[in-house]
Amino acid sequence: MIHLNANDLALTHSLAKLKAASGSHSPSIATLRETLPALKIKIDACFLSNPYATDLFMQELESKLIAQGGLRDALEFYPSQNAAIAQKLAKYLHIDSSHIFIGNGAIEVIQAVLHNFVRTNLVVPIPTFSSYYEFVRDGVEVLLYKLPKEQNYALDIEAYTKFIQDHNAKNALIINPNNPDGGYIPYDTLRECLARLRHLESVIIDESFLHFGYEDSSLEQISYTKLVEEFSNVVLIKSMSKDFGVAGLRAGYGVMAKNRVEALLHNGYLWNVNGLSEFFFSLFGDDEFLQKYERVRKSYITQTQEFFKALGQIDSIKTYPSKANFALVELLNGAKAQDLCIKLLSSYGIYTRSCSDKIGLEGEFLRIASRSEQENTQILQSLQEIFTGDF
Amino acid sequence: MIHLNANDLALTHSLAKLKAASGSHSPSIATLRETLPALKIKIDACFLSNPYATDLFMQELESKLIAQGGLRDALEFYPSQNAAIAQKLAKYLHIDSSHIFIGNGAIEVIQAVLHNFVRTNLVVPIPTFSSYYEFVRDGVEVLLYKLPKEQNYALDIEAYTKFIQDHNAKNALIINPNNPDGGYIPYDTLRECLARLRHLESVIIDESFLHFGYEDSSLEQISYTKLVEEFSNVVLIKSMSKDFGVAGLRAGYGVMAKNRVEALLHNGYLWNVNGLSEFFFSLFGDDEFLQKYERVRKSYITQTQEFFKALGQIDSIKTYPSKANFALVELLNGAKAQDLCIKLLSSYGIYTRSCSDKIGLEGEFLRIASRSEQENTQILQSLQEIFTGDF
Repeated sequence: MIHLNANDLALTHSLAKLKAASGSHSPSIATLRETLPALKIKIDACFLSNPYATDLFMQELESKLIAQGGLRDALEFYPSQNAAIAQKLAKYLHIDSSHIFIGNGAIEVIQAVLHNFVRTNLVVPIPTFSSYYEFVRDGVEVLLYKLPKEQNYALDIEAYTKFIQDHNAKNALIINPNNPDGGYIPYDTLRECLARLRHLESVIIDESFLHFGYEDSSLEQISYTKLVEEFSNVVLIKSMSKDFGVAGLRAGYGVMAKNRVEALLHNGYLWNVNGLSEFFFSLFGDDEFLQKYERVRKSYITQTQEFFKALGQIDSIKTYPSKANFALVELLNGAKAQDLCIKLLSSYGIYTRSCSDKIGLEGEFLRIASRSEQENTQILQSLQEIFTGDF
Repeated sequence: MIHLNANDLALTHSLAKLKAASGSHSPSIATLRETLPALKIKIDACFLSNPYATDLFMQELESKLIAQGGLRDALEFYPSQNAAIAQKLAKYLHIDSSHIFIGNGAIEVIQAVLHNFVRTNLVVPIPTFSSYYEFVRDGVEVLLYKLPKEQNYALDIEAYTKFIQDHNAKNALIINPNNPDGGYIPYDTLRECLARLRHLESVIIDESFLHFGYEDSSLEQISYTKLVEEFSNVVLIKSMSKDFGVAGLRAGYGVMAKNRVEALLHNGYLWNVNGLSEFFFSLFGDDEFLQKYERVRKSYITQTQEFFKALGQIDSIKTYPSKANFALVELLNGAKAQDLCIKLLSSYGIYTRSCSDKIGLEGEFLRIASRSEQENTQILQSLQEIFTGDF
């Protein structure tokens, strides 16, 4: 169905090599550009971030730091310590700063939480973000819970809590919305699930894509901090790379019981926030910034859902329901996901994520990020051309 | 000897509160400015960094990233993974990148090394940088080895290796030049010491201030990477905040046996370098940058040593021999170090580090950083005025 020419095959080979060097993650666009300069990448639909939020951050950085002559100070001097940065988020998160652990990206929070609080076993629904099973300490048993394809990989809390009970598990993970499918558990259902899991040592909720989720058409921001106050075993982990479009800054946080924050800060994580991230965190005390952010967040959700709807109308592929900023797309016509990725890259300059290496997915899948409205249109046109045209 | 007025006493009280919130470290100048806006700090002589190297980095950042329109990309997209960044340093360090672990500041490397490789006990010479005993895992025994005041806190390798043997220690720390006194162990002596310690599990060498040290008047840069190849138990830890003047970037590294780097990367530290740090690390492939850096490094050493010589001529204080970029200063006339810090801050806007909380120091000490030539002159004039004037 998808015919690759000699160039495409060479590209397949080069990408496979780069992928092998990047472990379970995609090679970054910078690495691609450095290694394969002939490749003209126009759209990075592998990269899961709101480009309008990046626009907003760059405006704030320019007007409030660079134009004020503050860039040198931010890079020359030591940033504030972890607990001082946590205070900058407390009001925004509606929780005392003693519950907040600031991370150098969510990946540091994942590592810290897994290394310090998960000592026996961990239930991980799959498909998932691979670091959750790769970063456990040696000796910790990972119990993989397969999300059912026939239910669009949605997490059913009855079945999930039964699995946890049957395996006498001590710790469990929930990613909401889930990566790579974007499946969303409504707030009340999640709360019910946590009520059934209060006997566990830890329930980790990764809410990295939560700002793209919504409960109703008001698209109001959803917050789980109250759940941490209600259930002391809940640990929230959040990347700020996606919703705020600042993956290069390295900013994330965890919200958890005070004694856990204390345990983490007891012998580590002192100055893990860089000077520009400190500037970023300081924006959360600025109501005007937060209002602007809400506008770009909501308009991006609207565009994203329109994009998914249009994706769903393309023949030969199935688009799974998603409340994240990416869609899991399954090829139904016998084509290989890897071949589609190569074709999109070589003929259209569109970089997407083949999910061939994701455990828990059976079939041919790729993950396509929602980018700017204009880029989304180009992605749609390219796919239509591939599936209806002469390729 | 040092008379404090009512304002000074109020400042003493405010600083004590800030210090209590900062643990074993000094409150940052940003925190001071935020909390005590009335205070006019002109010179931060608490902060151990080469200001000329900061000038150089800011020029490079401006011309090679910002002016090229690259700032947004550096902040929007994911940076490269740890091992890819290590490759950027390999040529400069003359060692294969598989020996290099990149840290989000040296403090992350210290934490990673202590948590992963120090499991029984650790010998720590004091006075020292407090994180080395604060960040050990619970249950690890810290054996404090007191550097002798009567020998200017110099580390004597005979006595040190005997102490290690007598205590049946498995791991030992050497900071060279040492913090807070700047004492320097010559290369051949250090090598001899390592030869005697090859039976240990780990010998950690913190070389964060090594770029300010020198063996002879050529002031050539000293490198310990060959020692890692010769002694497989050696772990080098280096902050790049001091010599390169970029504490806000958070950049540091460790050099160690390959299997140790592998162990650290096995389940963590994937994307711990931010986009601007990645730009900084990329400069180490640029010979022109390295030549410019060598010039600012050497001229700063020369100015620093002149500053220390002049400090040594002030009555009522003793300046300890230092090959770092700070001097440990002891008050000999009965004055309190804390009072001198307050007086310098309130009357001259000069922020220095009182060492009252440093274990292993007996007497009244403060640590004064070498800053720009002009700032050093102001520090000298202020001290002369305090010790010879009417205060």
